[in-house]
Amino acid sequence: MHFASDNAGPAHPRVIEALAAANEGHAMAYGEDPLTARAVARIREVFEAPEAEVFLVASGTAANAILLASLAKPWQTVFAAETAHIHEDECGAAEFMTGGAKITLVPGVDGKLSRDALAATIAGLGGRGVHGVAPGPVSITNATEKGTLYIHEEIAGIAGVADRAGVPLHMDGARFANAVAALGVTPADLTWRAGVDALSLGATKNGCLAAEAIVVFDPALARETERRRMRAGHLLSKQRFIAAQVLAWLDDGLWLDLAAHANTAAARLTEGLARRNDVRLLFEPEVNMLFVDMPRALHRRLLARGAAYRLWSGSLEGDDDDAPLTARLVCDWSKTDAEIDAFLGLF
Amino acid sequence: MHFASDNAGPAHPRVIEALAAANEGHAMAYGEDPLTARAVARIREVFEAPEAEVFLVASGTAANAILLASLAKPWQTVFAAETAHIHEDECGAAEFMTGGAKITLVPGVDGKLSRDALAATIAGLGGRGVHGVAPGPVSITNATEKGTLYIHEEIAGIAGVADRAGVPLHMDGARFANAVAALGVTPADLTWRAGVDALSLGATKNGCLAAEAIVVFDPALARETERRRMRAGHLLSKQRFIAAQVLAWLDDGLWLDLAAHANTAAARLTEGLARRNDVRLLFEPEVNMLFVDMPRALHRRLLARGAAYRLWSGSLEGDDDDAPLTARLVCDWSKTDAEIDAFLGLF
Amino acid sequence: MHFASDNAGPAHPRVIEALAAANEGHAMAYGEDPLTARAVARIREVFEAPEAEVFLVASGTAANAILLASLAKPWQTVFAAETAHIHEDECGAAEFMTGGAKITLVPGVDGKLSRDALAATIAGLGGRGVHGVAPGPVSITNATEKGTLYIHEEIAGIAGVADRAGVPLHMDGARFANAVAALGVTPADLTWRAGVDALSLGATKNGCLAAEAIVVFDPALARETERRRMRAGHLLSKQRFIAAQVLAWLDDGLWLDLAAHANTAAARLTEGLARRNDVRLLFEPEVNMLFVDMPRALHRRLLARGAAYRLWSGSLEGDDDDAPLTARLVCDWSKTDAEIDAFLGLF
Amino acid sequence: MHFASDNAGPAHPRVIEALAAANEGHAMAYGEDPLTARAVARIREVFEAPEAEVFLVASGTAANAILLASLAKPWQTVFAAETAHIHEDECGAAEFMTGGAKITLVPGVDGKLSRDALAATIAGLGGRGVHGVAPGPVSITNATEKGTLYIHEEIAGIAGVADRAGVPLHMDGARFANAVAALGVTPADLTWRAGVDALSLGATKNGCLAAEAIVVFDPALARETERRRMRAGHLLSKQRFIAAQVLAWLDDGLWLDLAAHANTAAARLTEGLARRNDVRLLFEPEVNMLFVDMPRALHRRLLARGAAYRLWSGSLEGDDDDAPLTARLVCDWSKTDAEIDAFLGLF
Repeated sequence: MHFASDNAGPAHPRVIEALAAANEGHAMAYGEDPLTARAVARIREVFEAPEAEVFLVASGTAANAILLASLAKPWQTVFAAETAHIHEDECGAAEFMTGGAKITLVPGVDGKLSRDALAATIAGLGGRGVHGVAPGPVSITNATEKGTLYIHEEIAGIAGVADRAGVPLHMDGARFANAVAALGVTPADLTWRAGVDALSLGATKNGCLAAEAIVVFDPALARETERRRMRAGHLLSKQRFIAAQVLAWLDDGLWLDLAAHANTAAARLTEGLARRNDVRLLFEPEVNMLFVDMPRALHRRLLARGAAYRLWSGSLEGDDDDAPLTARLVCDWSKTDAEIDAFLGLF
Repeated sequence: MHFASDNAGPAHPRVIEALAAANEGHAMAYGEDPLTARAVARIREVFEAPEAEVFLVASGTAANAILLASLAKPWQTVFAAETAHIHEDECGAAEFMTGGAKITLVPGVDGKLSRDALAATIAGLGGRGVHGVAPGPVSITNATEKGTLYIHEEIAGIAGVADRAGVPLHMDGARFANAVAALGVTPADLTWRAGVDALSLGATKNGCLAAEAIVVFDPALARETERRRMRAGHLLSKQRFIAAQVLAWLDDGLWLDLAAHANTAAARLTEGLARRNDVRLLFEPEVNMLFVDMPRALHRRLLARGAAYRLWSGSLEGDDDDAPLTARLVCDWSKTDAEIDAFLGLF
Repeated sequence: MHFASDNAGPAHPRVIEALAAANEGHAMAYGEDPLTARAVARIREVFEAPEAEVFLVASGTAANAILLASLAKPWQTVFAAETAHIHEDECGAAEFMTGGAKITLVPGVDGKLSRDALAATIAGLGGRGVHGVAPGPVSITNATEKGTLYIHEEIAGIAGVADRAGVPLHMDGARFANAVAALGVTPADLTWRAGVDALSLGATKNGCLAAEAIVVFDPALARETERRRMRAGHLLSKQRFIAAQVLAWLDDGLWLDLAAHANTAAARLTEGLARRNDVRLLFEPEVNMLFVDMPRALHRRLLARGAAYRLWSGSLEGDDDDAPLTARLVCDWSKTDAEIDAFLGLF
Repeated sequence: MHFASDNAGPAHPRVIEALAAANEGHAMAYGEDPLTARAVARIREVFEAPEAEVFLVASGTAANAILLASLAKPWQTVFAAETAHIHEDECGAAEFMTGGAKITLVPGVDGKLSRDALAATIAGLGGRGVHGVAPGPVSITNATEKGTLYIHEEIAGIAGVADRAGVPLHMDGARFANAVAALGVTPADLTWRAGVDALSLGATKNGCLAAEAIVVFDPALARETERRRMRAGHLLSKQRFIAAQVLAWLDDGLWLDLAAHANTAAARLTEGLARRNDVRLLFEPEVNMLFVDMPRALHRRLLARGAAYRLWSGSLEGDDDDAPLTARLVCDWSKTDAEIDAFLGLF
């Protein structure tokens, strides 16, 4: 009954098998091996983007920060939602790797920034010349940190604003697979066809051990990426082991199956919780993650009975048993109906 | 017949098995899992250093750069041998992570910096006050980039110079296991007992997939390390998979067995090459790596017949068949006598 | 009729005379000269702070950024009002010099951050451990960018919040003299006695050519400042010329006379404008600067007749003659009654 | 009898007068004033470079570091002589502003790097791909830190090597005026006509208070310079006061007259010292600066009798009265024959 994070789950057995298989014999280090070449080619295929530049790394924070550093000058500002992982959860990695670029927060709802608010925020920077920072990349997360989704049209709208401002559009796709699976669109539709210039494609949360890809659809934007990856210590020597994970994950659509399964598990959990009066959903969950308010006493009971999840606000300590505290509940690919039902049975 | 790098070899099967075993069930992310705690405890045990701070990462460049950034102020200079990996092979990662510290090269021979040259170099900085950079950490590599070793007494001598200058001593231990195995000393003797303040402990080259540990013997020097690791994107979400590798690698002395085997393989290779008139050893190999000069025509023949290794100087192109070109030949833990003999049979 | 900026005005003749006088003979460079020592001593006296560390620089942006870099770790965030110069007008200098620290905006009114909003903002960061950035220095500007003031009690309240969070309090005093003159308090009362740990003391806007002082009341916080100033190119070789300006400016209370004069000029201007129906004051001006809304047609008339000031919002272009556009009007120390009356006569 | 530095001397009276004259009335801040425009135009004229981009700053370290940051990527290395000011005397400012670029030292003699050594050093970097740092700008100083000169042909030779490597050529011209005056060539001949892409033009040491110009002959290389200057706090608000200094300094060839005078003074001093057996010249002085070895006892006598200069090696403390210690003797524009003769009379 572990709903703390999709990072808390195991890798899929096929990924482990692929690792073991990749472990035969020797291969040139630092990405000059055949598996890396195949993984890059496979990602281009999946995204229908033969020109895309692809760089494998082991962490999502690395993917985001290296990519933003490739897209932004130090005197620019990145535009992102208040809930963006790059703003709240990466300890300033983007600020570090860019050499001190800012992140300007754009208002929105449900973990999404709004197109109009973005346009207004960019306009609000203007007129300060060399004294103000310059507009830089727009960064959106899909699926969002709140378990919601940007659909193709929303992305295209945001891309239009970015384009008029002359700045690139980045997508943090830590849960990109969940978004594709939920929306039933192609990876291309949800990215470059909607105007996304570069993607951090996450596999770790969705069945891998440590595998992420930086995908730059416009190769002109990737001129600095290889050096920045190296210089940040993110070109692994035995790069073939990231590649092996990515290949197994993409093979036969495993990535989308796992994501769909996680989404379905979250839907089952949502349905179960929706029947209860003492649980309130904060956002309409669209992928594999939900945020709920429950009374403090209920949290205490659930956690004491063996459930695992993270409190997103408040503390178990306190006198008021009825005070609502927020929990984040995340379903990874490995959740079973039985585990969800067992959790619902604890209430 | 692959001698290109110890990074080119496979992981040991017990490491792969440990990964698969670690892949059961859920565990808290970002290092809050039991395996990570066990790996940290195990490293402290192996080094007889119960107070040491330990941080697992996936790349050796990351270990070095995060550690140096924890030890050096941006206006200091690191002292290192000309052949140091941090100087030649990490694309300026240390300069990046420190915020622009310098690396000052210290003369030496056989890939080692000399104690007296270090003292002279530090003294040579002096007298410029705020105009010059200040002395910072001394960084030595053991085993060195040239396949040679610092013995305990040499390290202690260098540590004395560092100490008198009031700066810490860092050891890049990408091949630390090879050094311990070759010298038959304890890990503690070769590090903190000799005056080393912090170690980058490499496991990747010696039987793991991607596993390195930052080991800071004086906890006061590690105050910034955790934040710097996070901010550089090097705290993996599924940290337990690095921990699993480290545990298997240290278990039952596997790490030293593998290193000893690699050293022995290199000795066999050295012995075979020493019999030939057209091969000249550049350094006396003490661990698992040798540098040899051979005529261009011989290189062409070996590579054409399926050997794999890296030219360290010169190029296969050229008219002069007799021109000596340098090769680096590295034996990883998986080298068999048969493979070495087959290589020697190609000559 | 030039109200564009207090940076647009001349230096006071006594400052120019002091420069000429300082230009006799030779003096050691880089601040090892007697004038610099005297200027430092004089600032300590004026602030009743014999232990303070003082560093002279030529630009206010330099003073702020060097000081914040001395006070903040790269993984911290500075807290500041939305209107802070460090946020809006310094092109990311603080982010650059700190190595990528964030600036977190704290709500407030009239250019001031509020104590309660600060406490809430700091609390709102919490709970993310190594994933979030850590709280860093609080930075307030006095007099503010909007021409308003923090009084001693407000500063002490903010200092209390900073203190409970374990972070230092910085004051951007680009117009500190105007604040002291307006409030009739001592420099010490408005800074360290109210809990300010470090001050950027501005002289350039108030009668100098290029002279600012970094004043660190707690010397323990200044350990990095000298190196950071040097490394950023802000230790001038002929440092005595900054010192000469500072000495003349502080001598006989000239700095407060000039500031009081500028404040009085702005009051006269305010009074004149308050009589008009088509002019609306946006903030209650407390020092030497006011923000007013006036119809577009009126702006056009004033500027055509020779007035000089900056539009703070909107554009002269546009069909609607009645649309209100914001102007910033700043009085420097050299404004005469005649100039103000001439400007008022243009309406 | 002050020979410590050309930074220790006064500004020329015409520069002070120009400052006083510039102090009339108001002018837009941050370089949008007419004097700044005139100073930029005047520098373009003097260099016969109508397309050059020019940026005024107050410190030579700032000029060098901002310029190198505009020319170099963080993963590049700058090539410079071991005696370069950017390497030895700027506390890592170039490393800081570039975001961690390296400086690679190029062998040479008399404070100059040699063309062949440069070619060899650049070639020596090669072959490491993404692992090594990439070649970046070459930086030479003219006149050098040792009081010697690069002539046009030497510069052109170095520029050829830089050009073949695809990297720009920077000149640190802290004493550029002394070089032009000594060589009797035009500023254009000594810079862009010889292949120099960008110049740090120093005026402070040669008769100004604090005035330096970044001159970028190829405007394409200056795209980042304005932002980098602002972000480093080096765009002064009352920029007109730097411009006024520059204009007075260039007017009627004052800059070259002052430099020629300083050079002549140094020649007189050299001649006087050459007559003595106990003084040994270390370099053949070509501009306004000489390095001499003299016995410790002689140093003690001279300094006790009121001479002022800097010891460049060794210490006055010591038993051996005959031990040779190195002094640097610099003549600024204000040195008189009488002062030099008085100094020579102390021996």
